[in-house]
Amino acid sequence: MNDTLISHGTPADKARIVAYEMARNSLEGTYTHGINRFARLVRSVDSGTIVPSAEPELVASCGAMSRYEGHMGFGIINAIFAMDRAIDLASEHGIGLVSLAHSNHWLRAATYGYRALERGCAAICFTNTTNNMPAWGATDSRLGNNPFVMAFPRKNGQHMIVDSAMSQFSYGALEVARLAGKQMSVAAGFDKNGNITTDPSAVLETRRPLSAGYWKGAAMSFMIDIFSSCLSGGFPVADIAEQKEESALSQVFIAIDYRKIVGEDEADRIAERAIEYLKGSTKAEGTKEIVYPGERMMRVREENLREGIPVDERVWSEILSL
Amino acid sequence: MNDTLISHGTPADKARIVAYEMARNSLEGTYTHGINRFARLVRSVDSGTIVPSAEPELVASCGAMSRYEGHMGFGIINAIFAMDRAIDLASEHGIGLVSLAHSNHWLRAATYGYRALERGCAAICFTNTTNNMPAWGATDSRLGNNPFVMAFPRKNGQHMIVDSAMSQFSYGALEVARLAGKQMSVAAGFDKNGNITTDPSAVLETRRPLSAGYWKGAAMSFMIDIFSSCLSGGFPVADIAEQKEESALSQVFIAIDYRKIVGEDEADRIAERAIEYLKGSTKAEGTKEIVYPGERMMRVREENLREGIPVDERVWSEILSL
Repeated sequence: MNDTLISHGTPADKARIVAYEMARNSLEGTYTHGINRFARLVRSVDSGTIVPSAEPELVASCGAMSRYEGHMGFGIINAIFAMDRAIDLASEHGIGLVSLAHSNHWLRAATYGYRALERGCAAICFTNTTNNMPAWGATDSRLGNNPFVMAFPRKNGQHMIVDSAMSQFSYGALEVARLAGKQMSVAAGFDKNGNITTDPSAVLETRRPLSAGYWKGAAMSFMIDIFSSCLSGGFPVADIAEQKEESALSQVFIAIDYRKIVGEDEADRIAERAIEYLKGSTKAEGTKEIVYPGERMMRVREENLREGIPVDERVWSEILSL
Repeated sequence: MNDTLISHGTPADKARIVAYEMARNSLEGTYTHGINRFARLVRSVDSGTIVPSAEPELVASCGAMSRYEGHMGFGIINAIFAMDRAIDLASEHGIGLVSLAHSNHWLRAATYGYRALERGCAAICFTNTTNNMPAWGATDSRLGNNPFVMAFPRKNGQHMIVDSAMSQFSYGALEVARLAGKQMSVAAGFDKNGNITTDPSAVLETRRPLSAGYWKGAAMSFMIDIFSSCLSGGFPVADIAEQKEESALSQVFIAIDYRKIVGEDEADRIAERAIEYLKGSTKAEGTKEIVYPGERMMRVREENLREGIPVDERVWSEILSL
């Protein structure tokens, strides 16, 4: 992947980071935003949507906040840069916020949460997307699913992190279920009669996927779009929807060096208490285990480190042909 | 309300603020956390759960972050103080974070968002609660519904704000529907056979309300609890659950003075674009209007300013008897 990126015009330092992070996304179980997405990323470089040599540029800065222009560079490169800057600001001020305009898809949202966790900071970050989800009460998609991350570190490295899009299911998940002839586990969207359904085919036909929590996820999505675009001076979903492909996204990265106001041991003890309490829940029939956010990922990572990263043969052939 | 608070031992300066904010909550349509809740608040003062003269005390501070001990004071007093401090920090550093331990119920979460909006800042704030919602796959309640707020101002005062608990419906809403013999509009929880249901009686029986977005709201709830308790050194839901009544809550207040990195007019233009796009959605059958988060509250406020705040006679009689 590194070599392919270089042969398509990516500077070596950037190619290494993008290849590493996409491999890591698959290693940690986010296959859809890992190796599976690599061929599409290279096509975006070829089409000019991604400018492979672009560097983020400082637009404005004040105290613990900085605003950057992404110049349509790699989403991963820009977002890592932005979270690293937010962490630097947090080292100085306790908390740091960096906003980023006109960047590309950052792939796995959790990547930037882990970036902060691995430097001992908590993080909140989010991005807007193209229009892929209807407003509450609407039939056409004018909201993004706008992934949102909250991450808090633990001393033992078993970090807590939620990486959640504002739709109940992604289009990718709906398509996988449709091909397998399966129903979704819970309500997934609206059918052509305007009824809520678990049938992926019906939702793919209407293009009316359900926002997570109905009106709640729709409202959160809108506010994430407002924060992302207004804090960066970048595009809201309304403008991203007019691009040829999903690009020119707006993002916000907040890092919190909590150790400046709470002892690391003190916070760790509180987290252990919360985890122990949660995991001691009475399990419903059919539940094997109650997990905290981020726990499952650690297991997939360990399994894939031990047994190798599963990669679809067709995906790999396509990458080799690039 | 002001006089009643004073006669129950509240210092005059604090009584004025608590009475004002509770009246305002009803004025702006959040009746459950307004005048309807006043008698219960006074009982909490009488029982000693709320310490009416308590003042928040600085525990630690670094740059743009401060941590306070709430000393079991009025939730409204402590939370207003904390958001005001966060706004002060944002005025200096661009962004400010204040955490608060051992406070009481802050009543309407949106109150603290509006506090920032009225001083021209954006805000994110959240609180934990007592255990009132099961983890995903669990039957007993070991999560809070943990309200979360994101707020961004507009120059015309028609601010954008989401104030969302992590449960799909509150117990209050389920009880109102049960008394009226109505079904909930969407899935509300589990019945005794472990099936998802819209029947409020069934959910009130099992005490298994649904988290908003199923596993998504459950995961967000847990992370809000971790941030609230770990950043403040306060209680997680696990410890709040052991209190006699819901108290000793942990809260976080983040204010963002975005004008330091983005022009006020520039942000306002982006917000107008986003609102116009959203409201231009194609309406589903039965939808009268697509609203942005915060829009409906402004209308209720205007209506109630014009016609008076509706107050239940029994609620008012009880207050007069205190």
